[in-house]
Amino acid sequence: MNTSTTADDIIQLVQFSLQFGRVARATLHEDGQRTESDAEHTVMLGLVACGIAEKRYPQLDIGLVSQFALVHDLVETYAGDTPTLKISASQKRDKSAREHAAMKRIEQEFGQNFPFIPRMIIRYEAQTEPEARFVRAVDKIIPKATHILNGAATLRAQGITAADVRKTYADQEADMRTYASDFPEILELRKELAERMLAAIP
Amino acid sequence: MNTSTTADDIIQLVQFSLQFGRVARATLHEDGQRTESDAEHTVMLGLVACGIAEKRYPQLDIGLVSQFALVHDLVETYAGDTPTLKISASQKRDKSAREHAAMKRIEQEFGQNFPFIPRMIIRYEAQTEPEARFVRAVDKIIPKATHILNGAATLRAQGITAADVRKTYADQEADMRTYASDFPEILELRKELAERMLAAIP
Repeated sequence: MNTSTTADDIIQLVQFSLQFGRVARATLHEDGQRTESDAEHTVMLGLVACGIAEKRYPQLDIGLVSQFALVHDLVETYAGDTPTLKISASQKRDKSAREHAAMKRIEQEFGQNFPFIPRMIIRYEAQTEPEARFVRAVDKIIPKATHILNGAATLRAQGITAADVRKTYADQEADMRTYASDFPEILELRKELAERMLAAIP
Repeated sequence: MNTSTTADDIIQLVQFSLQFGRVARATLHEDGQRTESDAEHTVMLGLVACGIAEKRYPQLDIGLVSQFALVHDLVETYAGDTPTLKISASQKRDKSAREHAAMKRIEQEFGQNFPFIPRMIIRYEAQTEPEARFVRAVDKIIPKATHILNGAATLRAQGITAADVRKTYADQEADMRTYASDFPEILELRKELAERMLAAIP
């Protein structure tokens, strides 16, 4: 196994990071115009997840929370962001296939030079460690705060109605009870943020 | 002490994260046009620092490396990014004063609701833990990779010459020997990336 790191390895990972930073999400900044990027979302998730974990869930390893937040969306560098507020079953399958192919590519590109990256993504996706489940749960609540901050501009632009959102959120709530029931405060925050966001939709 | 986290607390931290994401750095993407943001730089530093640490410096706590990368530039949310390739002594003092004021504001805004944030910034700035020194050292090498990727477009645009850069880099190298001598591979990578970047300047 090659254990040294070369300048070319650094340049390759820097280029990957820049490409990740150019992935545009469906969510918008407070002005309702500027697109939120995957990099902005990743930093946001790191801060909110570590911030809540330190205060409310001292049993969690905050270092692991930070690392899972860092890698949680990296497959989108090659798979793109997929809006999920009104997603069909076939779109879900397509998303899954694209993300699987992206993961293979990341393993090929970084498995030797920076094994940290594919290894941490695999640990996150496995969702067996409490820190991975916690980060996944927090990832579900923060987009609601961005929608609230811009008056649900994304939803207006995409013609998504309160009824669409209620349906998606009912599924999301049921789903979160299967993996985040040991983080009751996150479930409560999800509920309150969802209600405030729904109130912002015309 | 207030230990619960409210929806308003989350919204405030999400807004802070978005504002941080809008801070533009002097460095550019590969096209030489798009400005690199503080959020993109933060994710990049997290990936490169954790990626090298896991492979070459197993004595470091990678969770701490990830957390220090996450918070290392947060004061720039309020202080802005300060280009340092050609910085005067008075500009350095001004940068320091702005960052000190920004830190006070972050402590006021988040000290109660998300103490993780000011506490980790203070630990990073103290530069006493090896993980903090390591992240600081890696932070010095990655901008060189971005300059190489865009053919030194930032430097051309700002009229910075190879002579300017050589002077700044000589100081940087001497400085890094005082805090990063136990990370010899980082010093070697710095040297190689600096040479390749200098070769890209007209």
